[in-house]
Amino acid sequence: MLNASPDIREQMLRCAAMHPRGLRDTPLAALLLTNGDIDHIAGLLSLREQTPFTIHATGEILALLAANRIFDALSRDMVPRREVRLSTPFGILPGLQAEVFPVPGKTPLFMEEGEVNTGLLGEQTVGVRLSDGGKVAYYIPGCADVTGELIARLADADHLFFDGTLWQDDEMIRAGLGRKTGKRMGHVSMSGPKGSIARLAGLRAGKTFVHINNTNPVWRPDSLERAFARENGWEIAADGLEIEI
Amino acid sequence: MLNASPDIREQMLRCAAMHPRGLRDTPLAALLLTNGDIDHIAGLLSLREQTPFTIHATGEILALLAANRIFDALSRDMVPRREVRLSTPFGILPGLQAEVFPVPGKTPLFMEEGEVNTGLLGEQTVGVRLSDGGKVAYYIPGCADVTGELIARLADADHLFFDGTLWQDDEMIRAGLGRKTGKRMGHVSMSGPKGSIARLAGLRAGKTFVHINNTNPVWRPDSLERAFARENGWEIAADGLEIEI
Repeated sequence: MLNASPDIREQMLRCAAMHPRGLRDTPLAALLLTNGDIDHIAGLLSLREQTPFTIHATGEILALLAANRIFDALSRDMVPRREVRLSTPFGILPGLQAEVFPVPGKTPLFMEEGEVNTGLLGEQTVGVRLSDGGKVAYYIPGCADVTGELIARLADADHLFFDGTLWQDDEMIRAGLGRKTGKRMGHVSMSGPKGSIARLAGLRAGKTFVHINNTNPVWRPDSLERAFARENGWEIAADGLEIEI
Repeated sequence: MLNASPDIREQMLRCAAMHPRGLRDTPLAALLLTNGDIDHIAGLLSLREQTPFTIHATGEILALLAANRIFDALSRDMVPRREVRLSTPFGILPGLQAEVFPVPGKTPLFMEEGEVNTGLLGEQTVGVRLSDGGKVAYYIPGCADVTGELIARLADADHLFFDGTLWQDDEMIRAGLGRKTGKRMGHVSMSGPKGSIARLAGLRAGKTFVHINNTNPVWRPDSLERAFARENGWEIAADGLEIEI
């Protein structure tokens, strides 16, 4: 339940006067989960008001939602859950096809037990191919390794949105902010010979980094790292970004 | 994982320069859950970075957290969970005693099955008595009914923070924003002969409404309802509120 300040309340009342049916609308029509970790699913709990949209996810990710009853706060009537199969295109919105495929990843943090394999290929971490029948975009916010298979798959991309979590693998350790490498968290870094900038340099696609951690120096407008990424054809996503492909 | 804008990043870097160990600190030392519903527990998932604090809750609320593995994102080493017993004072912070007691409430929304009893008295909805050995404050953000027993209990209150969800029971229905009454959601309204303003009028305590829904007209600075609440000794909480008792 939101606690609105008087100013916000006034804005809401003005909004309600203009859009009498829209006070509790959500601009989302469809939602596709690419990962079951907390930063991909906890946001669902902020969308629980009774506004309709559809959740699309793999069977494994849907099973994870089902195993955590807190997600039942999203009414099944208003927010249906649809299982999507790997490598099987489906219509996600009118005129827009989606297809999910495995990328290297790991079990969500809160499900980890014992040794963690960050090179799993299955339903727990997926990339998405989106197409309107003309242009093709890929959205891959988490990926532990840029494999040759992935590079080959991305050959038809007009635009690629890709995991930009860290600049370098030990960045959080160096900053004194954690004990984990990017690899351990399931993320390939931007820099270095095995990093995303080097490995994806041959693609003809436009490229945008997304899912950028707050330790990543590409956030700094004047950083050498940001300049390097941009010189290599990458944009750094920010709130409000709109891209026409 | 937070996605910080360049401006925020700059602010964080300045903050880090001033407080080199404080970049990921939380100002929370202890947290006490009074309810297992989504608006009381989902915020835990925004506190998951490895910063230490303690969660206190009844056995029933802790069982609910345990049944939703997503909360394991909070490391048990850094964020211990401590069970508190009804009507049994415990030290929550140095110099501060807390005690929880049942108030009328219901099962969390996402656990509802069949007929819902909103008058349950047990571990699922509790009020809190806080004392430093001198002054006494009560914090009761959710309460379905102001019973005679509750009024008697609050006799020693110097200050009361109380459930201010709705002004009147059918407020959300009238606004076209929902099908539920306040009673159905487990909240007594402010107004009316059985409302909190009338029922709690005899207390000598200072009084502040908290947990106020965004449909409640007391948010409007110029509303008659706000004026009425204030004339009857109630303050309306807002972000940044500080009270000295």
